[in-house]
Amino acid sequence: MIKVYDLAGADDSERWSPYCWRVKLALAHKGLDFETIAWRYHQKERLIPAGQGSVPVLVDGDRWVGDSWRIALYLDEAYPDRPGLFGPQSGADPSLASFLRHWTEQQLHPLLRQVTLLRMYHRLHPLDQAYFRASREASLGMSLEDICRQAPACLTQFRSELAPLRKVLENQPYLGGQEPTYADYIVLGMLQWLAVSCQMDRHGQPRNLHAERRPARP
Amino acid sequence: MIKVYDLAGADDSERWSPYCWRVKLALAHKGLDFETIAWRYHQKERLIPAGQGSVPVLVDGDRWVGDSWRIALYLDEAYPDRPGLFGPQSGADPSLASFLRHWTEQQLHPLLRQVTLLRMYHRLHPLDQAYFRASREASLGMSLEDICRQAPACLTQFRSELAPLRKVLENQPYLGGQEPTYADYIVLGMLQWLAVSCQMDRHGQPRNLHAERRPARP
Repeated sequence: MIKVYDLAGADDSERWSPYCWRVKLALAHKGLDFETIAWRYHQKERLIPAGQGSVPVLVDGDRWVGDSWRIALYLDEAYPDRPGLFGPQSGADPSLASFLRHWTEQQLHPLLRQVTLLRMYHRLHPLDQAYFRASREASLGMSLEDICRQAPACLTQFRSELAPLRKVLENQPYLGGQEPTYADYIVLGMLQWLAVSCQMDRHGQPRNLHAERRPARP
Repeated sequence: MIKVYDLAGADDSERWSPYCWRVKLALAHKGLDFETIAWRYHQKERLIPAGQGSVPVLVDGDRWVGDSWRIALYLDEAYPDRPGLFGPQSGADPSLASFLRHWTEQQLHPLLRQVTLLRMYHRLHPLDQAYFRASREASLGMSLEDICRQAPACLTQFRSELAPLRKVLENQPYLGGQEPTYADYIVLGMLQWLAVSCQMDRHGQPRNLHAERRPARP
């Protein structure tokens, strides 16, 4: 059976990586059975056969494929008789889906980092926390606590940046038209990242956005 | 021959409407001969057969079609043997192109309004100027001169919002893949709006961005 190395928090059931969600949704779209393997940052050596140090990694028989975009292209090519990820038929042109990918990664993911980083940190396996803090603080140039202070403003801007998506969905049920395609999974993966790492309530509000900064009630 | 009512400045040769550009580029893509009719805001009665008061309007025999998006769908349906606007074949799903449309219209066009409004005003036919100033100032809640003051900041933000587009074009020549599709014409129409109304130089810099506010040199 196909296996997916999937980022997990300390609790095996907490899976928030947007890139891993793309892969799991793509596998479900193609109707392929798979199982996930909970993976954590301190287990990079487990991914060596894929030639990289980050998830998602897909293992299909003796084939190891890393990177969510390459995995999507691989699945559409390796399983051409299954529903297509980029159109009704497998092998449809992925060009515009790649725009959706870069739109989310360039314009939206940076905003969600401010909202999610500290929450992810608190939910990580203890052996992952020091690496996570050091690497994120080095790349963003400030402490996780300072990054998190911008969360409310970033969440407001995130909602405003969704305007073109909302416009499309006024006229059709999915970005892909009448049926979801990989473009929808890119967006849903991003929303799952937010929902799982922030434990969103059913109104789409992150629970205790400032919980980390508020003293506990007596 | 197909006719397109096309917004013109005082000078017949100045055509900057991004929506009219989409239509002209779509007609060229499908290899259809057409001629444009210079149209100005004070000539709304000429568009009555299309049931609307704004351009572009396409006239194909006795068929009048308004709105650039509806015109694109019409052309793909009416000329199925010509190259498709949304994929290699006519009739391909326009769903993701509609995302590109709303992305430009919601996120980018508002920024370019600040850059272009006063320039367009100065280039309009005298009979159009009062209507143009009053309608734009009413909808934006400030004078054209005040709107224009935000132009340099908006142009900087515009360039930054193009990030996902630049990322896609690192790996393929067009948004549509190896060949341009309607998504490319949406973006090119927007760039033509900027280039024509600001008389961009060949380095992509608007000529005399502050010309309206600087005293002439002695």
